[in-house]
Amino acid sequence: MKAIGFKQSLPITEENSFIEFEAEKPDPKAYDLLVSVKANSVNPVDFKIRQMAATGTVLDSPKIIGWDAAGVVEAVGDKVTSFKVGDEVYYAGDLTRSGSNAEYQLVDERIVGLKPQSLSMAAAAAIPLTGLTAYEALFDRIRIDPEKDKDKSVLILAGAGGVGSIAIQLAKKLTGLTVIATASRPDSQQWCTDMGADFVVNHYDLKAELDKIGHSQVDYIMDFVDINAYWETVAEIIKPQGHIVSITGSDEPLNLSLLKSKSVSFSWELMYTRSMFTTDDIDRQHFILNHMAELLDEGTLKTTLTTTLDGFTVENLKKAHQMQESGKTIGKTVIQF
Amino acid sequence: MKAIGFKQSLPITEENSFIEFEAEKPDPKAYDLLVSVKANSVNPVDFKIRQMAATGTVLDSPKIIGWDAAGVVEAVGDKVTSFKVGDEVYYAGDLTRSGSNAEYQLVDERIVGLKPQSLSMAAAAAIPLTGLTAYEALFDRIRIDPEKDKDKSVLILAGAGGVGSIAIQLAKKLTGLTVIATASRPDSQQWCTDMGADFVVNHYDLKAELDKIGHSQVDYIMDFVDINAYWETVAEIIKPQGHIVSITGSDEPLNLSLLKSKSVSFSWELMYTRSMFTTDDIDRQHFILNHMAELLDEGTLKTTLTTTLDGFTVENLKKAHQMQESGKTIGKTVIQF
Repeated sequence: MKAIGFKQSLPITEENSFIEFEAEKPDPKAYDLLVSVKANSVNPVDFKIRQMAATGTVLDSPKIIGWDAAGVVEAVGDKVTSFKVGDEVYYAGDLTRSGSNAEYQLVDERIVGLKPQSLSMAAAAAIPLTGLTAYEALFDRIRIDPEKDKDKSVLILAGAGGVGSIAIQLAKKLTGLTVIATASRPDSQQWCTDMGADFVVNHYDLKAELDKIGHSQVDYIMDFVDINAYWETVAEIIKPQGHIVSITGSDEPLNLSLLKSKSVSFSWELMYTRSMFTTDDIDRQHFILNHMAELLDEGTLKTTLTTTLDGFTVENLKKAHQMQESGKTIGKTVIQF
Repeated sequence: MKAIGFKQSLPITEENSFIEFEAEKPDPKAYDLLVSVKANSVNPVDFKIRQMAATGTVLDSPKIIGWDAAGVVEAVGDKVTSFKVGDEVYYAGDLTRSGSNAEYQLVDERIVGLKPQSLSMAAAAAIPLTGLTAYEALFDRIRIDPEKDKDKSVLILAGAGGVGSIAIQLAKKLTGLTVIATASRPDSQQWCTDMGADFVVNHYDLKAELDKIGHSQVDYIMDFVDINAYWETVAEIIKPQGHIVSITGSDEPLNLSLLKSKSVSFSWELMYTRSMFTTDDIDRQHFILNHMAELLDEGTLKTTLTTTLDGFTVENLKKAHQMQESGKTIGKTVIQF
């Protein structure tokens, strides 16, 4: 099968930052589905792994990354019960296994959902990684109770990015939360409004912007950009008994004691945790993806796809990485096979 | 009225570490109850505040501390609706107001519960601060769902202390969690078993002790002793998607990034947060104390009182502080007026 990978961590502009090669078509065992990949979405995790998986070394065989896809089930392992050959599926996958930058990929059925019927392969591929991240952050980390928490508010840092775009929608449609998103450019601000945000604020001088809209403090903060850069502001604007969830963070330690008198909670969210540790509730991702497919099909949610690159080529993959590295993309970028 | 306080932060062994004096009987306004204090419990927060509230200075008038009491309502403010004169009540109170080391004290009715009828004033006074802390930690910070989380496990660090003793009971009786408590001396280990712990482990070489009982990792950790000292072990033994709640912590920052790949959550619990910030849900403490009173009266919970000092005297208050400062007390120490 055709695959695209890398043997060295190189700047994306270099010739060999990605190379095309022939790989063996894998064989599904146990819970595995063999999926014929039809579309593949690129996220920040892709360029981060490309930049660090082979620094100062040359791998023996190319590494296949990419963990966000839609496709068709071509074969199944002997323990598979939820899917059959021919099913259209979508999934983020498992960081510890070979990725979706290939014509075929193995993925555990417990982290796969049925693709939303009303969506194209490209529009569906835009959803899994970011959707799982936002859904888990809201309901498995903060444990939001849509009824009990309906009068509360959430601030989404980087509302126009991939995760932010779907987080705005999920918070708005599945909870009664007042949704405030940060965005700084006119086009990204408009996008946040289109996604359903009640308020859009500029992240420069965030405190003053929040004062201006009458939400000086918020109950929940979802950080999708850089928690360390915002820490002191976050500690100031979070309400007593509030909850912060972050997918970022650096090696620099966070001064947690700023949150103590307010009894604040802090969660990390990594949507790969369940598959990485094969947790008892790993099939929660099967449930979440199916739930989001229903919401997409009934029109409650809309895809966050903004850019489709046509053709599974080295050139398109490089272009998608370059866009992610810029940090300025709105919504999601997908490569259509 | 008679009161006991201090004008200087002094070692407890010094003559003037506590002094008796005459104070004006306060007047209840708005939501306040004027309570005739009948019993008063001492917690670590007492000696911490005594040690730091007047260091290197002499206050103009003595500071009255003590925030854990039972007594009788003697008068009410004009907005009071839940209590009447003559009601027997118990409460922890509000750190920003004058404490219960006095014959009379004002306390907001929204953070007061009806005293368990079956308990003496002393046995009731042992409950509020620790009970609110443990209850809020389980249900408001971790947000344990007794049904969904019934197969999970909780490790309680310092199970024989005041908060640990009631936390063991609440976790055991109100959730299906497997309860593991730490204690190092034979008497404190026996006490944890009496409180209902499924397992008691020594905190020296905690990891090996947990391996021995077949719970190498746990879903939840409640820290009531010193989170900084345990941090690396805590990061190792917490399960993916686990939740840590702590009432301790020092100025030394915690390395949160150890928890990232496991998507772990961390909460501070301070039972004074609600009263300190007059949160919208401040009356949750009224509900919790009434709920615990029911559980105590029906025998589901038992008081954690172990030592009763008879008489509201400087000598007894000094003795109670000395016991708390030792860090070796089991259960709770109460002064009966």
